[in-house]
Amino acid sequence: MTKRIFNFSAGPATLPIEILERAQKDFLNYANEGMSVMEMSHRSKPFEEILHRAKSGVKELLNVPDTHDILFLQGGASLQFSMVPLNLKKEGKDALIINTGSWTKKAIKEIKKASSCKIIASSEDKNFSYIPTIPSLASEDASFAYLCSNNTIFGTQFKAFPDTGSIPLVADMSSDILSRPLDVSKFGLIFAGAQKNIGPSGVTLVIIRKDLAENPDPSLPSMLQYQSFIESNSLYNTIPTFGVYMIALMAEWLKEQGGLGKVQEKNEYKASLLYKEIEENSYYYCPVSETDRSLMNVVFRIHDSEDVEKRFVQEATEAGLSGLKGHRSVGGLRASIYNAHPVEGIEALVRFMKEFQHKYQK
Amino acid sequence: MTKRIFNFSAGPATLPIEILERAQKDFLNYANEGMSVMEMSHRSKPFEEILHRAKSGVKELLNVPDTHDILFLQGGASLQFSMVPLNLKKEGKDALIINTGSWTKKAIKEIKKASSCKIIASSEDKNFSYIPTIPSLASEDASFAYLCSNNTIFGTQFKAFPDTGSIPLVADMSSDILSRPLDVSKFGLIFAGAQKNIGPSGVTLVIIRKDLAENPDPSLPSMLQYQSFIESNSLYNTIPTFGVYMIALMAEWLKEQGGLGKVQEKNEYKASLLYKEIEENSYYYCPVSETDRSLMNVVFRIHDSEDVEKRFVQEATEAGLSGLKGHRSVGGLRASIYNAHPVEGIEALVRFMKEFQHKYQK
Repeated sequence: MTKRIFNFSAGPATLPIEILERAQKDFLNYANEGMSVMEMSHRSKPFEEILHRAKSGVKELLNVPDTHDILFLQGGASLQFSMVPLNLKKEGKDALIINTGSWTKKAIKEIKKASSCKIIASSEDKNFSYIPTIPSLASEDASFAYLCSNNTIFGTQFKAFPDTGSIPLVADMSSDILSRPLDVSKFGLIFAGAQKNIGPSGVTLVIIRKDLAENPDPSLPSMLQYQSFIESNSLYNTIPTFGVYMIALMAEWLKEQGGLGKVQEKNEYKASLLYKEIEENSYYYCPVSETDRSLMNVVFRIHDSEDVEKRFVQEATEAGLSGLKGHRSVGGLRASIYNAHPVEGIEALVRFMKEFQHKYQK
Repeated sequence: MTKRIFNFSAGPATLPIEILERAQKDFLNYANEGMSVMEMSHRSKPFEEILHRAKSGVKELLNVPDTHDILFLQGGASLQFSMVPLNLKKEGKDALIINTGSWTKKAIKEIKKASSCKIIASSEDKNFSYIPTIPSLASEDASFAYLCSNNTIFGTQFKAFPDTGSIPLVADMSSDILSRPLDVSKFGLIFAGAQKNIGPSGVTLVIIRKDLAENPDPSLPSMLQYQSFIESNSLYNTIPTFGVYMIALMAEWLKEQGGLGKVQEKNEYKASLLYKEIEENSYYYCPVSETDRSLMNVVFRIHDSEDVEKRFVQEATEAGLSGLKGHRSVGGLRASIYNAHPVEGIEALVRFMKEFQHKYQK
């Protein structure tokens, strides 16, 4: 029996055991090809089929319309922070930003290098503990509007998305992509590092409305032009083959769960177990506005005691519950419970929280 | 018994069976951590140790001096074609290019977007079938000099490198990195996609003289500044963890082979088996200048018959020798035999070449 712990890391994160076992079994000889997926030419038939499975899996799960293309890139969300403005900026127009925390701030820093920016909403006044109301954009004429749908560090999540009219809406969905159904047609561009909800690190999923990629600035590096990857079916250069393979497996697993409606239900149930304990057990509290709490990253605290929180992390780790330390910039505790995190892990954490409280509450 | 074929693909390419077996064994539970390497936080202790193993492995194998840093990036050589000039260009100075084929030409296209360029040597006059003589650079005042050390498509390889004096020498070593000893101190920057000689696709190894990364243009995307990755030990954002793990294993395997001196000897022996057959068997010929033939990509042809070459590829594939088709831009045949390609694969190919000739030579 393989030893497995419950991993609450913010990402890279837990993958479904069935998928890991499948990849392990085929690791030396995929589909009787006599080689590992890792050893295959990215232009070979078996790999092209894997790429097709990953792409059509995402297309089916999110019901991506034909106006949009699905790309697998490298560089993570951090490179998207630059690719988005370099491809979508328009002379004399602002990028409109909704600022919900550290990741948006990092994006703003990069967007500003390429484009003028206007912050149209922010929750910085209350340490990003809520999702701000977004003003009407009816009178705005902007190149794009930008938000981060789920904020891993502060534990907030957009439950609905603003109607941006003719302004392309761009969303960093690195930490909640494929965790719930989505009307992709409302977005100009969605990007996500794979390493939280849909695979290993090293692949960036981009869903882009094709017209936004047309006529790129020819002085831009080819690797930073979305059009290079649209034209080549993500094979402009050597794609991270094994990561795409894991995404193909993960998309199939999500379909086996019953699709994203069912996945969302399961994610809601998993998060509710934790939020319920935090609400009912006065030893803990959640600093996040109730309506904006993330289903992916449950941020919580123990009243007035950083030392006790440290002890919590340590004893939890010893009990096989790993990765519960809050982000270094905010402290506290955090349970990241993406798609693949099993209900059993949450149940074990709730039990541990009760035991810990009984042991240490004065 | 797992079915394994001999894979002559130009990359991604064969990995050593011992390493694949090791990774397979640990796939669900690495070092008794209770999780896959793929599931580990890139900022966790066990992953930091893996990163250290990969980095110190490369450092030891290539005897990298302390003036240089070793980075693991994303985006492949194709992104380096832009990162190099964006970081190394100097106002009013040229980049000096040695043009040895398709990959250099792609690099030139991107370098030109950022910097003025001067082609100082080229083998284009004879379809890149040789390595050109490089003129003295004593009178040049340039930002950097650029070459591609091994040309996968045309089958040529630099056997020695030019002395560029105070001009930083930049080399794309994607297809022969860690295949032979190297005096790294002579280079300003070396880059290599991992997927041929040292691991899977999705990781780019960069070895850079640290002073060349200092004071980057602040308007450059942070992800395109080498300094971002030097300061963060390659952890500016989420690193492709599993790929780095495979590089760590591969570096250890290369050390077990006896280091790069021994690796070169083995590579020379492997290539000599093939070149010998091509020279001695009049049914085949090698279009590459004898002194410049690559140890990594053995390009060969069957006289005047593209149809017969097609049949060669097909029958070889059926015999378990895969990936022997020449690059689509040049046709013919090509055996890519990187570090991990076993001698047995070459011996099987030589046997096949003889059999094929007996069967079809008129």
